[in-house]
Amino acid sequence: MTKPPRLNLAAGPVDVMPETLRDMAKPVMYHYDPAFKEFFAHTCALLQQVFRTQYDVVIMQGEAILGLEAAAASLIRPGDKVLNLVSGVFGKWFEFFIDKFGGHTIELAVPYNDAIDPNEVRKALNANPGVKYLSVVHSETPSGTHNPLKEIGAVCKEFGVLTLVDTVSGLGAELLSPEEWNLDVAIAGPQKCLGGTPGLSLISVSPVAWERMESVANPLRGSFLSILDWRDAWLKENRFPYTPSVNEMYALESVLRQTLAVGMERFVERQQAIARACRAGVKALGLKLWPVREEIAASCVTAIAMPDGLTDAQIRDTMRHRYGVMISPGYGDLHGKLIRLGHMGPAQAHPTILAAQLAVFERALKDIGYPVQLGAGVGAAMAALDGWDDAA
Amino acid sequence: MTKPPRLNLAAGPVDVMPETLRDMAKPVMYHYDPAFKEFFAHTCALLQQVFRTQYDVVIMQGEAILGLEAAAASLIRPGDKVLNLVSGVFGKWFEFFIDKFGGHTIELAVPYNDAIDPNEVRKALNANPGVKYLSVVHSETPSGTHNPLKEIGAVCKEFGVLTLVDTVSGLGAELLSPEEWNLDVAIAGPQKCLGGTPGLSLISVSPVAWERMESVANPLRGSFLSILDWRDAWLKENRFPYTPSVNEMYALESVLRQTLAVGMERFVERQQAIARACRAGVKALGLKLWPVREEIAASCVTAIAMPDGLTDAQIRDTMRHRYGVMISPGYGDLHGKLIRLGHMGPAQAHPTILAAQLAVFERALKDIGYPVQLGAGVGAAMAALDGWDDAA
Amino acid sequence: MTKPPRLNLAAGPVDVMPETLRDMAKPVMYHYDPAFKEFFAHTCALLQQVFRTQYDVVIMQGEAILGLEAAAASLIRPGDKVLNLVSGVFGKWFEFFIDKFGGHTIELAVPYNDAIDPNEVRKALNANPGVKYLSVVHSETPSGTHNPLKEIGAVCKEFGVLTLVDTVSGLGAELLSPEEWNLDVAIAGPQKCLGGTPGLSLISVSPVAWERMESVANPLRGSFLSILDWRDAWLKENRFPYTPSVNEMYALESVLRQTLAVGMERFVERQQAIARACRAGVKALGLKLWPVREEIAASCVTAIAMPDGLTDAQIRDTMRHRYGVMISPGYGDLHGKLIRLGHMGPAQAHPTILAAQLAVFERALKDIGYPVQLGAGVGAAMAALDGWDDAA
Amino acid sequence: MTKPPRLNLAAGPVDVMPETLRDMAKPVMYHYDPAFKEFFAHTCALLQQVFRTQYDVVIMQGEAILGLEAAAASLIRPGDKVLNLVSGVFGKWFEFFIDKFGGHTIELAVPYNDAIDPNEVRKALNANPGVKYLSVVHSETPSGTHNPLKEIGAVCKEFGVLTLVDTVSGLGAELLSPEEWNLDVAIAGPQKCLGGTPGLSLISVSPVAWERMESVANPLRGSFLSILDWRDAWLKENRFPYTPSVNEMYALESVLRQTLAVGMERFVERQQAIARACRAGVKALGLKLWPVREEIAASCVTAIAMPDGLTDAQIRDTMRHRYGVMISPGYGDLHGKLIRLGHMGPAQAHPTILAAQLAVFERALKDIGYPVQLGAGVGAAMAALDGWDDAA
Repeated sequence: MTKPPRLNLAAGPVDVMPETLRDMAKPVMYHYDPAFKEFFAHTCALLQQVFRTQYDVVIMQGEAILGLEAAAASLIRPGDKVLNLVSGVFGKWFEFFIDKFGGHTIELAVPYNDAIDPNEVRKALNANPGVKYLSVVHSETPSGTHNPLKEIGAVCKEFGVLTLVDTVSGLGAELLSPEEWNLDVAIAGPQKCLGGTPGLSLISVSPVAWERMESVANPLRGSFLSILDWRDAWLKENRFPYTPSVNEMYALESVLRQTLAVGMERFVERQQAIARACRAGVKALGLKLWPVREEIAASCVTAIAMPDGLTDAQIRDTMRHRYGVMISPGYGDLHGKLIRLGHMGPAQAHPTILAAQLAVFERALKDIGYPVQLGAGVGAAMAALDGWDDAA
Repeated sequence: MTKPPRLNLAAGPVDVMPETLRDMAKPVMYHYDPAFKEFFAHTCALLQQVFRTQYDVVIMQGEAILGLEAAAASLIRPGDKVLNLVSGVFGKWFEFFIDKFGGHTIELAVPYNDAIDPNEVRKALNANPGVKYLSVVHSETPSGTHNPLKEIGAVCKEFGVLTLVDTVSGLGAELLSPEEWNLDVAIAGPQKCLGGTPGLSLISVSPVAWERMESVANPLRGSFLSILDWRDAWLKENRFPYTPSVNEMYALESVLRQTLAVGMERFVERQQAIARACRAGVKALGLKLWPVREEIAASCVTAIAMPDGLTDAQIRDTMRHRYGVMISPGYGDLHGKLIRLGHMGPAQAHPTILAAQLAVFERALKDIGYPVQLGAGVGAAMAALDGWDDAA
Repeated sequence: MTKPPRLNLAAGPVDVMPETLRDMAKPVMYHYDPAFKEFFAHTCALLQQVFRTQYDVVIMQGEAILGLEAAAASLIRPGDKVLNLVSGVFGKWFEFFIDKFGGHTIELAVPYNDAIDPNEVRKALNANPGVKYLSVVHSETPSGTHNPLKEIGAVCKEFGVLTLVDTVSGLGAELLSPEEWNLDVAIAGPQKCLGGTPGLSLISVSPVAWERMESVANPLRGSFLSILDWRDAWLKENRFPYTPSVNEMYALESVLRQTLAVGMERFVERQQAIARACRAGVKALGLKLWPVREEIAASCVTAIAMPDGLTDAQIRDTMRHRYGVMISPGYGDLHGKLIRLGHMGPAQAHPTILAAQLAVFERALKDIGYPVQLGAGVGAAMAALDGWDDAA
Repeated sequence: MTKPPRLNLAAGPVDVMPETLRDMAKPVMYHYDPAFKEFFAHTCALLQQVFRTQYDVVIMQGEAILGLEAAAASLIRPGDKVLNLVSGVFGKWFEFFIDKFGGHTIELAVPYNDAIDPNEVRKALNANPGVKYLSVVHSETPSGTHNPLKEIGAVCKEFGVLTLVDTVSGLGAELLSPEEWNLDVAIAGPQKCLGGTPGLSLISVSPVAWERMESVANPLRGSFLSILDWRDAWLKENRFPYTPSVNEMYALESVLRQTLAVGMERFVERQQAIARACRAGVKALGLKLWPVREEIAASCVTAIAMPDGLTDAQIRDTMRHRYGVMISPGYGDLHGKLIRLGHMGPAQAHPTILAAQLAVFERALKDIGYPVQLGAGVGAAMAALDGWDDAA
């Protein structure tokens, strides 16, 4: 059997804090145990703080793809016009859900190394009257880019368009706010920038979105895909539509608590600082970032255009097998075009782990014959971390 | 905050072995880490052994209700005749899924304290030509009863009817075999008799069921509900349709390994022996079992008809708050009519925990004024455990 | 390999709370890490609260026998008269230490099923002028008895005799107070009634005892046995005489915190209530308690005179191998004369575990042919627990 | 409260593998549980393999200073001539034990940045007839140096001098062999190069050493310091002289098992390769190693002469508080003269962690105004790791 890696610095799930694993390993409670029900409510309250929202939050018991499908299934009905913003694989993928539930997709696309321009959104909405929903990926993990969600949300507000937001790897990477940013349904994952374990969808739902879910034809109820079930059961009656994943909830509460102990502002700053330093390191090695402009680079992973003459597998296998460091390849259409250094979540987003990753990355490049000055990337990254302070 | 219980002896999720929690707390691997992919494959192989099958197994990443809905969604199409066996709340509930996907339900029902007679199944199939599917709950956790699944499966074979089996709390309670028992799609949960954590659906799929899923109108693909996605992705291409719940998989592998270390035959015998002893204890207290005949009593929980003059809440709250023992009430239509002592899974299905439970049950009955001779139930249960041997 | 037991209900070390093990498994810190030094100081402060003392406390890094030897080695010098109270194996054993360090032992002994009468202590001190130290075992775990420590301490105060107290299994069993009870050096263990892990000695030291340690000939310094080293290093200079057992400290802090969350008074009451109930159960089985009077029975274990015609091994092996319950035999001179049911510490001292233990005890007695009415002991024990309330 | 560090790279105790902590957290067994006794015996057998010896091994239940004092206390009697080799603080410290037990110390000393020359040992033994014992520190953790233990052992063999060896941080750093290297009593610690938790002394005892312990005046028995007690009790009678630290044993077994899974040869090579790389990194930063010659540099820590104009506290506090990396200062007489980068044990002795440490070290130097080219040390270290392969 292959040995586990030393460092899991992939695109998620990733290494989590030891405390999170200890908390996850608490004895299993029955979901209707009074102590568990209090715990679940408490966790939802923490999640609202992390989302910085007063909106209802729903924790669905499957990884974020469940939340994304559930949002589409709950809202999109045959003939609904959906403006789908596509700046990467995940954005494109959402079209599948729009189609699946009978929606009519209007696509606003940019190359997969670029980000959506909010003005183009305005143009598209002007050009396409009657758009009901806008769907957008906040942080395109496969591309290592992020879209200007706040500005896009503002445009949607002008048009009264309801927003479906994949912020799976965005929550914790930017200081978002569903109310201020006009996010109607925002779906996040615990296993990305929050540094939790995979297996849950974290959803913030605006009052307007609730109304819509209830007023569409055939409201989606009685299904693992139903968000309304959670409203009817948990939010209204303090019962569960089905058995929650008790230990995943323990892990979630742990990461939410840890996140809030740092403070959302500082949490996000740290995440961004490490991403910035990672990019500095990569550039110092003479490599090219995949995103077309650095200001659209994501905070969760740093995507690097594949260096000439190298293959993804060469780099990754060397890092994984010789040095025990797992990183992610390009995904879907981007496979082979880039590799991604991961730094999402508090266990990863730290100078120590960034240095370890870049040092092994450099070493692997050298092993496979790519000319690189060992230490150059690490040095530049550490230089960029001027002012870092764990104790602050 | 309410303190966690001492013993979680509910109807699931329940207390698990400490080893399971330690294994669950292993560092999170990226799902495409080579070590994780090997681990996932290895876990599937163990699951086949626990299911005692050569059929493909699929591990869906949500608790068993996901597997049940997925089975219905994958197979039932508008107009399909489904013979739905109803001997309890869960059996009745499945009708909702049949309806949801357009099936035509033919119901064969018995009171919720009884079990289905295989001869009645034969009669119903004779009376209703063209039935495509039979749906049945193996172990009706809410009623504390089980149906004669083997015999029912044999009848279905005669008629060429495909079987959809909810064995969520049946796997580990009886020595089933999908091939011999003619189970086409059998859905189990790790958090019941296997004593694992909740959050996964364990599914055994016959070749005929695969063919059917692929040949129905609009085969279900591209959804969290899709079983075919797992065939296309994992079974054929060794990739995942979406991110699996890594730590839930660790916990599952652990319980499968523990189960097989005991041996399926012995594992099931132990489960049944404890259930038998529990019933002996309950009867010795002068209480009435809920199941109409003892031979249909389930092995996962012992359902007790509510003693006259007592309420469910009185008993359960006293057990939970004064003595830290969590048990389950009646569920759905059965709420208030019965209570359920739990003994599912290796952490519970043991003389020590059974004795603890019965002693606290007796004590709570006395506390709330029900006449009971303290020790009578425990004594009868322990007497029934003649021959028990951990070391055997 | 023999499987681990289900329940470890021995005379210590015993089952601990799952929380304690999770806390023990925190990452290892360097002992001079600022976080660890704060943690160590915090743990000492908690220990003072558990000891209910303002005296200095010292945590030596080896199980309690280290603390006992250290106390003797630090105080007793050639020719010192020591009144050694002997009511059991451990009391007698202390004479070895007195001899080792040149002391002159004056023994006040009672049979090993009895306790010391404080009046006899007064008589002995009157009859032996010049006694410097009195050594006494508070809770004689091997005999399942306890001595009237408070009253003995008061007598010593009259005579100005310094007390060396083995309260290894006494701390947490009675509401002691070094100041009020006149205990000069009191040595406890985390792995008994506090329900911690073995590997540390917990010592409370009076100012007079400190003075004595420093003023004796050749004060003991520079040794693993030195208590003064801890004063010189930790208490005065905030450094360690040697590397502390970091993870044992984590576990200790956890149990101290858990103990104080219950509250010392209630903690002790629960311990005593369970012991009382255990004795009620044993007597109901027609067995004879080993202690000559019930009021001297210890709270940590219940010692039972060996039933006629049975051997210790028969009972214990049956309980351990068939039912996975580990209890303790007689120790030293008492081997074969008694067996001991354990109920020390919060994981054990609970109605659930007591019931489990008694049920298995009864069952094992029956298995080996001893006439017993199954359930009689459990019933009597549960009857004795009238008023128990976890939530109180 | 100060937060725990991210990386504990001190001079021990240090970060351990997550697996070790999970194993440590297994339920506490009674030490006379049959399963624990088998486990203890099994652990001793593994320890013999790690020590590469057929000699008896003894596991004393306190950190290594206990084993060192115990060895002296067990063997040295008044008037015994002991040749004490001093190349550092720990070597010098042993003189205290020689004195304590009445021995006559003959010192062979070198500066604390140098190592003992075996020829000087021969000269000293020639010049001092009647020397009974030679005491030597294999790996001087405070100096970051090691002595040529094999050659020193060979000289002692010529003279029939019994050797007392402090290999606390040497076991796992070199491929030693008590038989081949003529080590009579060798004391190691689990918390150094084996990467375990602190709290145990691991001792290998030659037959000659056993004879001597039994034949000296007043053989040391009946004490926490007694090695003979373990022979009499555990090795001869399969019982314990006192309660072992059950969870420390779990952790020890885990690290021994992990070590042997790597294989001793490879384990040691990895340890040495990382130490070599660390030195390369330090030199590339223009800093001076503390050891006078690189071939005497230890594998457990890299001692660096304090750079001009800096203080120990500046460097360490910056690393610890700003970047969460804990390293060790100079110890005792060496305080302020050096700092020590730690890389002992499998969790640390890896390219990832070495890179993290050096990167933070560089960053901290820069923060406090020392001229350093960020990345230079990391790069040189990684260059020195040519050929490293986790998968090999």
